[in-house]
This record gives sequence, C-alpha cells and structure tokens, in this order.
Amino acid sequence: MLVGMQPLALTMGDPAGIGGELTLRAWLALRQTPFCVLDDPDRLRALARHLNLSVPIATIDSPAQVGATFADALPVLPVRLANPPRFGDPDPANAPATIAAIEQATHLAMSGAVGAIVTNPINKAALYGAGFAYPGHTEFLAALTGVPNQEVMMLAGPTLRVVPVTVHLSLRKAIAALTTERIVAVARTTALAMRRDFGFARPRLGIAGLNPHAGEQGTLGDEEGEIIVPAMRILREDGIDVSGPWPPDTMFTEEARTRYDAAICMYHDQALIPLKTLDMDRGVNVTLGLPIVRTSPDHGTAYDIAGKGIARPVSLIAAIELAAWLGPRRALTRAR
Amino acid sequence: MLVGMQPLALTMGDPAGIGGELTLRAWLALRQTPFCVLDDPDRLRALARHLNLSVPIATIDSPAQVGATFADALPVLPVRLANPPRFGDPDPANAPATIAAIEQATHLAMSGAVGAIVTNPINKAALYGAGFAYPGHTEFLAALTGVPNQEVMMLAGPTLRVVPVTVHLSLRKAIAALTTERIVAVARTTALAMRRDFGFARPRLGIAGLNPHAGEQGTLGDEEGEIIVPAMRILREDGIDVSGPWPPDTMFTEEARTRYDAAICMYHDQALIPLKTLDMDRGVNVTLGLPIVRTSPDHGTAYDIAGKGIARPVSLIAAIELAAWLGPRRALTRAR
Repeated sequence: MLVGMQPLALTMGDPAGIGGELTLRAWLALRQTPFCVLDDPDRLRALARHLNLSVPIATIDSPAQVGATFADALPVLPVRLANPPRFGDPDPANAPATIAAIEQATHLAMSGAVGAIVTNPINKAALYGAGFAYPGHTEFLAALTGVPNQEVMMLAGPTLRVVPVTVHLSLRKAIAALTTERIVAVARTTALAMRRDFGFARPRLGIAGLNPHAGEQGTLGDEEGEIIVPAMRILREDGIDVSGPWPPDTMFTEEARTRYDAAICMYHDQALIPLKTLDMDRGVNVTLGLPIVRTSPDHGTAYDIAGKGIARPVSLIAAIELAAWLGPRRALTRAR
Repeated sequence: MLVGMQPLALTMGDPAGIGGELTLRAWLALRQTPFCVLDDPDRLRALARHLNLSVPIATIDSPAQVGATFADALPVLPVRLANPPRFGDPDPANAPATIAAIEQATHLAMSGAVGAIVTNPINKAALYGAGFAYPGHTEFLAALTGVPNQEVMMLAGPTLRVVPVTVHLSLRKAIAALTTERIVAVARTTALAMRRDFGFARPRLGIAGLNPHAGEQGTLGDEEGEIIVPAMRILREDGIDVSGPWPPDTMFTEEARTRYDAAICMYHDQALIPLKTLDMDRGVNVTLGLPIVRTSPDHGTAYDIAGKGIARPVSLIAAIELAAWLGPRRALTRAR
C-alpha cells in the first residue's frame, strides 16, 4: 500500500566537501520530496549556523519518521563524525563515518525502508586509509548490494541520457577494453533500466561509433564493423531497439537526440562532453544494474569552495528529484 | 587603397550535391557581402528555375566586375560542366570542373583578385577518377598554395572555436599520432591565425587533455604528462598564452568557454562533438596555415536532399560572412 511513499536517504559524502551545504539547501528547496540524510546532526547544525541557513535539524531513529518531520526540519539519521570537519581539508579520522553512511543508506534501500539513495560526493583518496578499496562510489555500491561488476553508469540530463561502455580508463585502455560482449552487457542493463525504472515500454538505444564519422566504412577504423555492429546484431535478436553506429559528432544535436532515448557511448568523454556541454549543472549520475535505485550529483567534493556558501545545489536537487521519480517505479515493478 | 574591398570567390563543389542550391540562396540572403562563384552559369540558371528561386545569373570575366554586378545578379566566373548534373548522382565527367573551380579560386586568392575563398562541399570519392589524390579539400588547397602538411582545421561556431590536432584518423591512430611536436605546430599555427586573421592581440589557447579527467595525475593515462604538458611548456616559451590540460568533459561548458579563445583538441570528435552539439548548423570550417583565407560550410554534399529545395544555407552563409571578415584583416596584415 505504501509503495512509492518511502522517503529517500541521502549520504553525507565527504564532510570536508560541499555535500552538507548542498543537503541543507536541497531541504530548503524541496518541500514536496521527503528525504533524510545519514550525517552528523551536530556538524549539520554548525554548518547551517556558519552559512546562515534556517534549517532546523531533527535527529530521527528510522526513515519511518521522515514523513512527520520533513515539513519542519531536516531529518537526520545520525552517523557521528570523529572530529568536526574542516572545510576543504579531509580528515582521515572522519573517513569511517563517510563509509558508514553509504553502507547504512544501502542497507535501508535493500530492506525497502527507503525508496532510493542519493549519494553526496566523496573523495576516494581520502577514504583509502580507512580501508576503502574501490575505484569509486559505484563499484562500492555494486559490491555492497552483491552485484559486483554489473554496475553501469548513466548520466541523465534534461534532454540527453548517456551511458559510457567504459568509465574510468585512459582513452587508450578504453579502446582496448571495447568488446562486443561489453557493449551487449551495458546495453542490456540500460534497456532493462529504461523499461523498469524510467518507464519506457520500448526504449530506443542510440549506439555511438568509436571513430570519426563512425569509421567511414572502415577507412577511419574497423571497430564499428568488428565490434559494434556485431553487438547491435545480438541486441536486435534480444528484441532491443538499437540504431547506429552513429557518427559521434552529429549524434548529440537537438534533432539527432530525438532518435533515441539513451545513447550508448564507447568511452567516457564521448558521453560526458555532450552531456556537460549541454547542461553542466543539471546532469544526474544514475547507477543502473543495482538492486537498488541510486542517483548522485554529477560533480565532486569541490574542496575549493566548501564552506563558502557559494556551492549550487542544482545537481543534487536534480538527483533527489530523479531518485524520487525512479524509486517508486522500481518498487511497483518489484511488487507486481 | 582597395585593401579589404575584394569580393570573395565561391567554388561550385560537387554539382550533384547541394552546393549550387546553397549558393543561390546565399546570394538571396547576403546583399552586403559581394561574392562570385566559379560554376557553370547554365546549370545555375536551370537550378534556379527548378527551385523556383529568383536569382538572375550574370556571367563575368573577372572578379573586378563583381562590385558592379552583385546587387542585381549572382556573378559567375564560368567553369563549364561536361554534362548537366543529376541530383545526388555524381558524374565522373563533371569531376574535372569541380577540381578546376577549386584551382581557379585558389589562384584568384593567391593573386589578390579575391579576398578569400569559400568552398562548397565535394565528395572525394567522386573525384578520384579525375586524378584527385588528396584525403580532402584542405590537403588539396595546401598543395595548391605550396604549403603541404601545414594546414590546420579550425571549426568556428558562434560561441566556440575548436582545432583538432589530428583530423581524419581512427581514434586508435589519432592517439598514436599525438606528439609534442604536432601539438606545438598546430597551436603555433592557431595562435598566428588568431592574431593575424581573427584580430586577437594575445589569443588564449585552451589545451584539452586526452584522457578522462585529463588523466587524473597519471592514474587515467600518461599522455598529459608525457606529451601535452611538455608542448605547453614550449608554447609558453614562445610567448603563447596556453592553459590546460583541461578535463575534456568540462571544458566546453558555457562558463569554461570564457577561459579561452580557441580550444586545441586532441582528436576529431573531442573537437567536433561539442561544436556540433552546441550549434549544428552554424559551424564554419576555416583552414589555418594557408597563404590564403579559406572557409567552408561544415557539412557534406548531402546527395540525399540535393535538388529538393530543402537544403539550409545557414552554414554556407556563416562561412561567407566569416571569410568576408577574415579576408580584409589578412590583406591589411600583408599590406603593412
């Protein structure tokens, strides 16, 4: 009955970064989208005072209390920091709390107590000393939810969704890592998420070429013919609507973007250049292929502006709104 | 005295493509920017009739007659075709005329009879039978003007200028071809053109990284440290204002674009994805490093829509306007 009514859980992220400030500002902006945050209530109170933001902090024990609390105060599930954070200066002693917030939020989502999680930015380097052994947030969540190596990153903006086949590899290694199997796996995960979470009955995937002009019939590279087209053949046999391989430079124009619902891109910047060029601030990172719904803002800890009161919550707000939209859809699918 | 008053010369391009139609429409749109076209007057008359465009055709003998003619008719320096062109169906017998138009326009520009040339799109494959032995237009012009291998392609849009260090190579080969020397040579040519032709007293060049996050201090690729940063050092010693290496995905946002006057990009799509995503229609191709000013529209022959009356002259008009702006600046520099 309460499917779709669960609140969201935000994580604190790196307390030396801008996450806390963004969370406070998101609460001020989003009065219709109940969420709680796993964070240290004392540090949030001090931060609100420092920034002169009127955000009452309410410590809660369970996400079930969010509904009664959210209108009047930001509900906080306490995760205590070892030390008061210093802006822009990550404290190794606080790393365990950052990690614990992610773990606890994930468990709340796995149990259904929250509808989705939204993660504030972390700085991996600041966590390695605390035993964090993942290339990033996303891989950690995949491990926590028991689906390692199945995670797929989507960046969703107002007029474009992109999914890179490889993420954090040098360009040279990304080309070497491009295989038919990998493209098929990423496209299948994307097609499933587009149906189940985004509600597209028959999502259209636009498959990018790798080379200029999509290889120009082999004269500018053979990966299209040898790797990408075979992947498209397999995906079509699956009943997935794919088109391409599109010449990368013309597939993100306003007109071309109407031809697909998500673009499967062959490397990080092929996906992220058009997304960020079109809309730097409002891109949302959505992790596909997890048993839970997870979004995050598409930026980092921004140590250089932490505590200055100038961080813009646009991407976090977009991440919360998208999570609030995706979470109930996933829950409904599960309930059927 | 007449510096800056020379007309421009357009080439016919592939007569089976949309070039003729674009030229007619550009004449209708551009009454303040005198130009002539090297084309077959009979085929242009027939084309205007077919498309129901009121464009009188005036055959002239010399660009000196453009001034007196342009207000009333499109001035044409005749280059006769062997056969009437068929829309979308290139005729090998017409290839020599397409090539001759490029050669004659180049000679007119070299002699100073025209201020700049604007080339309509060609299809290399349709020219190979006629002895054309170049990867494209640009390389042909470099050879014709005696500066082979010094040509540099700039794409200029309303809010972004991009210069790829390599152009028509597979992505794999583009990475292999990336050297400090090549980056330095392309950036020097760009800086010179930005000063001499575009009028920037001290042009700022934004140098892109190759890898995601510009390599993230070497963890995502070493080309930044080993190839790009050394090139920037040499360019700074030259007195050229360079910044970077910028993370490719965030260097084309509206805010980031204010930091440089031209972006030096490490491969074709890194340059062309943001340019075409931002403004598909109005991008202009400018060839830097030639002794003449040459621009061209940023699209191909568009055989599929030739003769249908739906081709949009936006890019050709932008190319003509930019050539008309650049040509006199170059002439002034030469005159000093």
